[in-house]
Amino acid sequence: MPKGKFITFEGVDGAGKTTQVQLLQQNLERHGFDCLVTREPGGSPGSESLREILVEKNKYDWSNLTELLLFFAARKDHVEKTICPALEAGKIVICDRFTDSTRVYQSQGNTELKELIEYLQSRIIKLEPTLTYILTVKPELSLERTNERKEGDWRLNALTRQRLVNVINDFSTLVRDYPERCVEISTKMGPEESAKQILEIALEKLS
Amino acid sequence: MPKGKFITFEGVDGAGKTTQVQLLQQNLERHGFDCLVTREPGGSPGSESLREILVEKNKYDWSNLTELLLFFAARKDHVEKTICPALEAGKIVICDRFTDSTRVYQSQGNTELKELIEYLQSRIIKLEPTLTYILTVKPELSLERTNERKEGDWRLNALTRQRLVNVINDFSTLVRDYPERCVEISTKMGPEESAKQILEIALEKLS
Repeated sequence: MPKGKFITFEGVDGAGKTTQVQLLQQNLERHGFDCLVTREPGGSPGSESLREILVEKNKYDWSNLTELLLFFAARKDHVEKTICPALEAGKIVICDRFTDSTRVYQSQGNTELKELIEYLQSRIIKLEPTLTYILTVKPELSLERTNERKEGDWRLNALTRQRLVNVINDFSTLVRDYPERCVEISTKMGPEESAKQILEIALEKLS
Repeated sequence: MPKGKFITFEGVDGAGKTTQVQLLQQNLERHGFDCLVTREPGGSPGSESLREILVEKNKYDWSNLTELLLFFAARKDHVEKTICPALEAGKIVICDRFTDSTRVYQSQGNTELKELIEYLQSRIIKLEPTLTYILTVKPELSLERTNERKEGDWRLNALTRQRLVNVINDFSTLVRDYPERCVEISTKMGPEESAKQILEIALEKLS
């Protein structure tokens, strides 16, 4: 068993994941923990090269199934090269997105796809987080923030408001499916308040 | 059901696949068949981009499992974008390597890996060739030819003679596993003689 702990942040783009990942790192380091911050897809040279071709959705027009395999390939490389070595060295690994994002974006509520995702997760990845924060945000705010970045959420084929609402709901469902590790964090009280709540939960889990 | 037929060539590098693919195309076109020649990994823009990062094995140091997922992702894109549309248009698709290569190179005789490969093949690819030629070659000749090309067989981590002998044997085993579609072609009587034999078998299968 690895000595470290694996913490993930999930939610749609514009929910504030990047900010909270950084704040949790700073706060945990202040408490003496050795942290490694990483993100998906990416976090290793091979996985970063896959990120580049995944983001170019329009150029390659990946189907949902091809995309699903590419996310798992990138994840496997990331786990082998970056996450597991850090956990074995006793670090707290804080990761922006992991398999839960695939569960939400690629399953599309389809039973056959869900089965395929769980098969790949259990047979190939074989790693689940100790703690997962699901950041919730109002669809309007997510759209506003991602529009400001002029990038939208490239995981969504068509960033319609309705698709976004469904994805936000599917993220919330994870708390029901994995109650032992998933906790929902509302971001409406501002980043500092959320960070305080996030740190409290982490310290409890790490003690 | 698609109107076309799907023919694949398998065997180690240096067995003469590229030559025989071209000769079969020319011979079938002379008999009035409309052919599409393609190869794996590759054959579609997305799959070609994946080929590039797969070939750079040393740069990314892909593990066997990551490589397996990448081959299946490239295959899915190739099937969706190139092979299936050609089959639906009634063409004879002649492909240099397909899932049998993954069965041989990535399974490494391991039952768990074999199961995973068959799961991905049946759940994601859902296409098997009508006819597969397994080209056999002596290990010495394969080594000599791939050394001349100064590239070796990048699918093999270490191109030792023993590993090559095992791979050649595993390709031959496919004829026993899939007797309804796999046929072994010895290349020792020269390319013209092999091509004649290959054409005869194809014409019988296509009639």
